[in-house]
Amino acid sequence: MLNQTDIQKFFKPRHIAIVGVSAGEYKFGGMSFLMKLQDGGYPGRLYPINPKAKEIRGLKVYPDILSLPEVPDLAMVCVAAKFVPSVLEQCARIGLRHIHIFTSGFNETGLEEGKKLEGQIASIAKDKGLKIIGPNCMGPYCPSSQLTAWGAIPGLSGTLGIISQSGGLTQRLTEYTDSLGIGVGRAVSFGNGTVLNALDFLEAMAEDESIRVIAMYLESVMNGSRFLQIARHVSNNKPIVLWKGGESSAGAATAASHTGAMFGEQRLWEAFFRQTGAIHVRSMNEWVDIIMALSMLSAPAGKGVFLIGGGGGNSVAYGDLCIREGLEVPQLSESTMESLRRSVPVAGSIAGNPLDMWLTFTDPGYLADVLDLAYKDPSVSMVVVDRLIPRKAFHMPDMIDPTPEIIEFLNHNDHAKPTVFTIDSDGGDLDLTEKGVALRAHFCKAGIPAFPSFRRAARALSHLYSYHNFRKTCESSRK
Amino acid sequence: MLNQTDIQKFFKPRHIAIVGVSAGEYKFGGMSFLMKLQDGGYPGRLYPINPKAKEIRGLKVYPDILSLPEVPDLAMVCVAAKFVPSVLEQCARIGLRHIHIFTSGFNETGLEEGKKLEGQIASIAKDKGLKIIGPNCMGPYCPSSQLTAWGAIPGLSGTLGIISQSGGLTQRLTEYTDSLGIGVGRAVSFGNGTVLNALDFLEAMAEDESIRVIAMYLESVMNGSRFLQIARHVSNNKPIVLWKGGESSAGAATAASHTGAMFGEQRLWEAFFRQTGAIHVRSMNEWVDIIMALSMLSAPAGKGVFLIGGGGGNSVAYGDLCIREGLEVPQLSESTMESLRRSVPVAGSIAGNPLDMWLTFTDPGYLADVLDLAYKDPSVSMVVVDRLIPRKAFHMPDMIDPTPEIIEFLNHNDHAKPTVFTIDSDGGDLDLTEKGVALRAHFCKAGIPAFPSFRRAARALSHLYSYHNFRKTCESSRK
Repeated sequence: MLNQTDIQKFFKPRHIAIVGVSAGEYKFGGMSFLMKLQDGGYPGRLYPINPKAKEIRGLKVYPDILSLPEVPDLAMVCVAAKFVPSVLEQCARIGLRHIHIFTSGFNETGLEEGKKLEGQIASIAKDKGLKIIGPNCMGPYCPSSQLTAWGAIPGLSGTLGIISQSGGLTQRLTEYTDSLGIGVGRAVSFGNGTVLNALDFLEAMAEDESIRVIAMYLESVMNGSRFLQIARHVSNNKPIVLWKGGESSAGAATAASHTGAMFGEQRLWEAFFRQTGAIHVRSMNEWVDIIMALSMLSAPAGKGVFLIGGGGGNSVAYGDLCIREGLEVPQLSESTMESLRRSVPVAGSIAGNPLDMWLTFTDPGYLADVLDLAYKDPSVSMVVVDRLIPRKAFHMPDMIDPTPEIIEFLNHNDHAKPTVFTIDSDGGDLDLTEKGVALRAHFCKAGIPAFPSFRRAARALSHLYSYHNFRKTCESSRK
Repeated sequence: MLNQTDIQKFFKPRHIAIVGVSAGEYKFGGMSFLMKLQDGGYPGRLYPINPKAKEIRGLKVYPDILSLPEVPDLAMVCVAAKFVPSVLEQCARIGLRHIHIFTSGFNETGLEEGKKLEGQIASIAKDKGLKIIGPNCMGPYCPSSQLTAWGAIPGLSGTLGIISQSGGLTQRLTEYTDSLGIGVGRAVSFGNGTVLNALDFLEAMAEDESIRVIAMYLESVMNGSRFLQIARHVSNNKPIVLWKGGESSAGAATAASHTGAMFGEQRLWEAFFRQTGAIHVRSMNEWVDIIMALSMLSAPAGKGVFLIGGGGGNSVAYGDLCIREGLEVPQLSESTMESLRRSVPVAGSIAGNPLDMWLTFTDPGYLADVLDLAYKDPSVSMVVVDRLIPRKAFHMPDMIDPTPEIIEFLNHNDHAKPTVFTIDSDGGDLDLTEKGVALRAHFCKAGIPAFPSFRRAARALSHLYSYHNFRKTCESSRK
């Protein structure tokens, strides 16, 4: 179990030693960590360590841990695998107990030499009471303390916690969420998990009130039954979004050579998800989509979705996709239909759910009226609104962007039910892409989820509903 | 059945009458058709018809069909529904037999008045021998004859045929494929299909040697057994990619009010896909993805995929996604592995399938060597290569774009097996998006499929394999 001091030293270290910073050209690892910490405005002292250099990027370089003028809170170890045990011994000697090992070349290689070295790490840690993240990982990331050795720059601070066995996927996740206005509280890429593992960080983030959503990427778990117990408890307070890598035999074989760990049975994992209420995702996009929905939306009362916009073909397709994702597309109440029929012409539009009405694209006042109707209709629990980007192929005259007015309406409507937008701008058309991505970011940064395809919106809403339904079911079973 | 003259008059008309062009402000329909035909450089004479105007956009306006100075090959009818029968009578009177009816307000409204009017269209067509596309649709599109009343501008000409019950989805498809360098041969949006329907156009495109891939969007089929018979025959020569809208009860209800047609049973459709080898897609992105794969790739020998690039976490996830899509991630042959091991370092990389090796991102010569190994390995039938966009979060120095060299290698390699790329640039970061979309378009326009996510690449390759496997199975059963 990590205590408050451990959390402080890993995620808000006052000074950091970086062991193994190359003096010459750019290298991934020690050098890139140093560069990012400096560029990200890390306020503490940084101690690069390299026996052959005097100064790197304006900083005095020390030959080893023992020559440091003070004991840093954290060491980032980036030297070759065979040197790692002696660095750990030195850390222990000066009382430096919090260590991130970036270096790879251990269990994950499948070679005797690597396994032996990883065994040494475990035994030194045990003997000397060292807390170690890694090896073979990117370590901790915390935007609020400018601890940004690898995450997004500038790192947006927020309420997302990340616990991951893959540095690359986590790095991408921090960039991706950042670009959509979703801030990170703490993230940790823990690699082989020799000393500290996923459960240690999960327990810590469960206790941490600043974390509201926990994203995990795992290829293996050492103690399945304990994980199940903790995850079930955590899910009742905050959602866990878990991407389980290595589900297939092909993926599992790769996982073994990626982080050197054993992988679980597919059936056990299915039971895990059913029993814990953890949300099961299978790709980067699905991961981000549900993180966004959970971070920005309140709990929906049911699974009925009202669909707005689209055109005829899209309306049909959107209905299909909702049903395929386990959602419902309910008939609207008679009073809602009466109001809708008054505003929708007979030809070229469809009054109902989906509502196919051109005016929703161009007239924010009309859209607001329709949304108000939907929020009052008891059959509707969530709303998806299709957005259109005026483009050459429609031959439309330029129109005033209705987005600011729509955002204003949504963010000041006390009765609003979970409402998301979809913006399709896929393809190779740069102009369309730029408009689409800017529009998406505009909504997201205002706290309103927007997705690049309807399929992804429907999947995210389905997860959102399932998670809150799990919590509700647990609550009522406790009564 | 459509004969050569019909095809000529619909898709290469020498002159067009547009019945119902508004004189005032921009309106979707007659006015937008006229604008697009003019802007798209349509070379024939255009006759706008409006009883109240003298001149529109520099063209002399005629009060009705009967006053035209010659008989145009094609009439596009955009007047209100109640006026359509009399326009058809006038067309028949001057011997104008090829007609596209844009107007909506017929069976799809579910109202008696609309049904009666659609009945009149059918009966006039039968009496007078009129060939009619529509009503309630966008009609024909043919870039090679600048017949671009609604499709992409500038319309790239090519070998894709499109038959669709949704104008909006078809319009989007033509834009989307155009932006990726995929040209359209002929497209038709046929709406309610009162006179000419999907089967008429399918038979015509089956005969047409300039069409290599047929994309369909259907919400209903009037004659299921005939469709099955034709589709099975066509699939043996060219692929049919069919998006069936209205699969769910929610979608089907909307489909009824979209095109006024009856929808089929889910189980019947499943049997249809199994028996015909038509490729079943369920969203715009999936539609475009498999169209691209079929248009650009040769038949794979098997379903074994070699995965290159990625990083550790991605490699695991990509393996999982391949298996989930019904593909295989085979172990490489011992000789391939031997060659790979010589170039891949023990730490921080994975030699095998997936291959996780940083150098494949930056060194096109190394990537070419690896691809050559893969093409020689009998276990490999297809290859997916992950591309990386240098970005702030990696803190990488700028590198020379290896893309031109990779394209050169692939387009001049006689032994190349179907090879595709994935480029992840999703999110709200404009710089990343611009680079990603440009890179994607660069590959696609060179005839090499590139997808914005690995999941989509795997799904497209799975469809590609299944289609060619269907053809192979049919061939061997005929022997």
